[in-house]
Amino acid sequence: MNIGELIRSNRSCRRFEEHHRVDISTLRELVDLARCSASAANRQPLRYILSADPDTNAGIFSCLGWAAYLKDWPGPSPGERPAAYIVILGDRETAKNYWCDHGIAAQSMLLGARAQGLAGCMFGAINANKLRGLCDIPPRYDILLVLAIGKPVEHAVLETVDDSGNIRYWRDTDGVHHVPKRTLEELIVETYGD
Amino acid sequence: MNIGELIRSNRSCRRFEEHHRVDISTLRELVDLARCSASAANRQPLRYILSADPDTNAGIFSCLGWAAYLKDWPGPSPGERPAAYIVILGDRETAKNYWCDHGIAAQSMLLGARAQGLAGCMFGAINANKLRGLCDIPPRYDILLVLAIGKPVEHAVLETVDDSGNIRYWRDTDGVHHVPKRTLEELIVETYGD
Repeated sequence: MNIGELIRSNRSCRRFEEHHRVDISTLRELVDLARCSASAANRQPLRYILSADPDTNAGIFSCLGWAAYLKDWPGPSPGERPAAYIVILGDRETAKNYWCDHGIAAQSMLLGARAQGLAGCMFGAINANKLRGLCDIPPRYDILLVLAIGKPVEHAVLETVDDSGNIRYWRDTDGVHHVPKRTLEELIVETYGD
Repeated sequence: MNIGELIRSNRSCRRFEEHHRVDISTLRELVDLARCSASAANRQPLRYILSADPDTNAGIFSCLGWAAYLKDWPGPSPGERPAAYIVILGDRETAKNYWCDHGIAAQSMLLGARAQGLAGCMFGAINANKLRGLCDIPPRYDILLVLAIGKPVEHAVLETVDDSGNIRYWRDTDGVHHVPKRTLEELIVETYGD
């Protein structure tokens, strides 16, 4: 897969083959991709907690808000939950502002996961206090994102936002996840040159 | 190149073959990679201004702060300046918070550029008022990042941060750009499972 195919096939995934293990060495490889990615002023303030442990995974799972637009779906059932997590922290003692470093890092890691036949999802809707207690996260670290990772069992397709402008993803009766994306014309507001 | 090689070879670049043109269709392909990337709650609030025009490029160039750690270097000389720019905007009427969407988008676009033999650099140090006037950017848009893009003429190498903890990049007498990165051990603060 070239990078274009990889990015397009890298869809947020929320149902997994939970019994398919993702081990810590795989998670470390993904963090190494983040490590080698750009960071504002090269400060590198991001830190990581890795979990491939079923008990810890269950705790992290309970801290996450799943798929806000799927009102009738509380999140994946047992057996379809993520096999691993990467918690992205920001170290206040390293930088005052994380800018968009966690977006850069998360994209690198999920592209790396996708290239290995895995899939994932970024969570910003986190019960941070609960997660802080669960993983005993010191106050110097801000909780920025959680990545859920596993072998995907759901299929997602990109579509074009229609005239209604509705960007809410939805799931059809076959379980296919539909993601409306704005057109390139809507996104590009000005062009200079040719 | 696999994704790991691509990410590791995708170093921030600040000197280019300015006469090597990057056309608007190439920039549009890069924005399409951002378009197909993840966005918080799928709101897709990012918008883009593209420039492959020498006069506009000169104006954008004058709005950027180059390489804060290279105190004796005011930025690339004429002939080594970027051939193109992508300005990343946030549309306040689409979302109240852009989270780290611009990091995700910027990483997708620079990986796409790298795969085409180009290179780039993300700028957060922007004279936003000047750029807003130059490109007549309406108030509804926040200026989030500028990506400079072109054919690279500099070589960058990753190194390990030494005991001093100094993360400042530096340039040697051969013009090679050295980027100290923290070790994986420093970044991973806790591991659960194996």
